[in-house]
Amino acid sequence: MSDEAAAERLDRQLAFLLEADLLKQVERRTSIRGQSRRENSAEHSWHLALFALVLAEHADEPVDAVKVVTMLLLHDLVEIDAGDVFLYDEALRAQKEVEERAAAERIFGLLPADQGEPLKALWEEFEARETPEARFAAAVDRLQPLLLNIEGGGEPWRSHGVTGDRVRSVNSRIGTASSTLWEHAQRLLDEAEATGVLDPGPAEPS
Amino acid sequence: MSDEAAAERLDRQLAFLLEADLLKQVERRTSIRGQSRRENSAEHSWHLALFALVLAEHADEPVDAVKVVTMLLLHDLVEIDAGDVFLYDEALRAQKEVEERAAAERIFGLLPADQGEPLKALWEEFEARETPEARFAAAVDRLQPLLLNIEGGGEPWRSHGVTGDRVRSVNSRIGTASSTLWEHAQRLLDEAEATGVLDPGPAEPS
Repeated sequence: MSDEAAAERLDRQLAFLLEADLLKQVERRTSIRGQSRRENSAEHSWHLALFALVLAEHADEPVDAVKVVTMLLLHDLVEIDAGDVFLYDEALRAQKEVEERAAAERIFGLLPADQGEPLKALWEEFEARETPEARFAAAVDRLQPLLLNIEGGGEPWRSHGVTGDRVRSVNSRIGTASSTLWEHAQRLLDEAEATGVLDPGPAEPS
Repeated sequence: MSDEAAAERLDRQLAFLLEADLLKQVERRTSIRGQSRRENSAEHSWHLALFALVLAEHADEPVDAVKVVTMLLLHDLVEIDAGDVFLYDEALRAQKEVEERAAAERIFGLLPADQGEPLKALWEEFEARETPEARFAAAVDRLQPLLLNIEGGGEPWRSHGVTGDRVRSVNSRIGTASSTLWEHAQRLLDEAEATGVLDPGPAEPS
């Protein structure tokens, strides 16, 4: 590589990394422990990477933990352009898809193509949920806010009127990747309902 | 493993992951882009993991990028107990060593031993700076705040009276892992001094 090409390559890499900094300003609905403030998507991504490192052994199908970690480090970068969508706002989630694809083009396109393309492909793999790694990454992306919401006494479920039946339905995806983690999560949800942390929602029709 | 042992194992893993959440409350001296607030050590760790993913090719000695990423995800967890120390406060840094070792015992000790021990060993490897991976991880841990400080117009260097000569001396460690990144950083520092973003410090004795 010429000196000029090498310098341009490094400039593109650093431009991507500085752009990534903006994810620290994207606010999620979940709060950090202690409830002093909302969590942002950058620290959330870090937390999920730790979840994947520690919990990979509970995947029903063997997963490449490194691939899951990398996927999770990248999975929210599109929110720099498209913003975070609350897990329970399913209509808005569908609508955001086009915006997120454009964001992936732009943001991974900041990198040299030989780096940006594989990273964008990894983001697409995450979105498609078709590989064991993508399913496991999506499962910890559900499990972490569930744990934080319980830890925080049921906020933000309560403030958004989200009831136990919806929490179970939206988070059942955890069970498609790890029966161990989903069974554990369901026990925690039972407990949360029993202690008033989570409103169970409409009773079964009798 | 008995059901009871399996349940205890998962409980320990989740206790560690919830404890890790507290790193989101540890504030650093560097601000995020736009200078609206200080960076915290959790989002900083995420950012560094991305730096390692993208910049590993610039290491002078070949590095295992996965190991560097894992190291960086973990490297600041001890700050949950010991707090962050400003890069330029070298006296306090030395004094913190004992506290950080105790923190590593406690925090990695929350995990099942077969997971906690290797992760603690990786933190120790980072601290010792003796392997190419540890040196490269330490280099990006220097490079990221340097870039953010320049991006932010020289805060917090100015507010802490840190001059160009000290910035060069403290960050020269980047050069022990990557001559490419250190040459680039020095060009940025020259520019920062030329444009008044960084006070060059005492003139050379004539």
